[in-house]
Amino acid sequence: MKTLVIFDIPSNKIRNKIGEACKDYGLMRIQKSSFFGDINNNRREELRLRLKKILDIREGNIQMFPICDKDLQMRKVIINQKEELSYETDN
Amino acid sequence: MKTLVIFDIPSNKIRNKIGEACKDYGLMRIQKSSFFGDINNNRREELRLRLKKILDIREGNIQMFPICDKDLQMRKVIINQKEELSYETDN
Repeated sequence: MKTLVIFDIPSNKIRNKIGEACKDYGLMRIQKSSFFGDINNNRREELRLRLKKILDIREGNIQMFPICDKDLQMRKVIINQKEELSYETDN
Repeated sequence: MKTLVIFDIPSNKIRNKIGEACKDYGLMRIQKSSFFGDINNNRREELRLRLKKILDIREGNIQMFPICDKDLQMRKVIINQKEELSYETDN
């Protein structure tokens, strides 16, 4: 199931680790602190536990939103890119 | 329908304006650059047009995800808060 992971984490180091974990689970960066991709329920739960472990007791806010295909069709994107970024979008 | 708005905008001024617009449409801040709340299809489209107008030709990436109740039940949140923030969460 498609899943969006968004996070708000003050520490650069921890933020990078969270991003790496999301990538390891096949999610793609769509914004600086947002990853998106297809992941099954078991793997999503695995990723959640990994993110929780990375954050540990440090300050931060991580939210995972599974998004069904029907909802995804209603996704709206507004993008102005001044330079080439590595953000991937499929919509 | 519940809707998540996430944005990645370099300009503080524009980012603040985007946040204000989301609040005007009844969405609540759940992270620094994420708003969430209930909004009907017409109002969501109105908000989209307003956000597009605010961003205009400036650099930025705004994404709106409608999220059905079934998906919302699977939302997972990991939060460590060191200080009192104004982020509201209902899950």
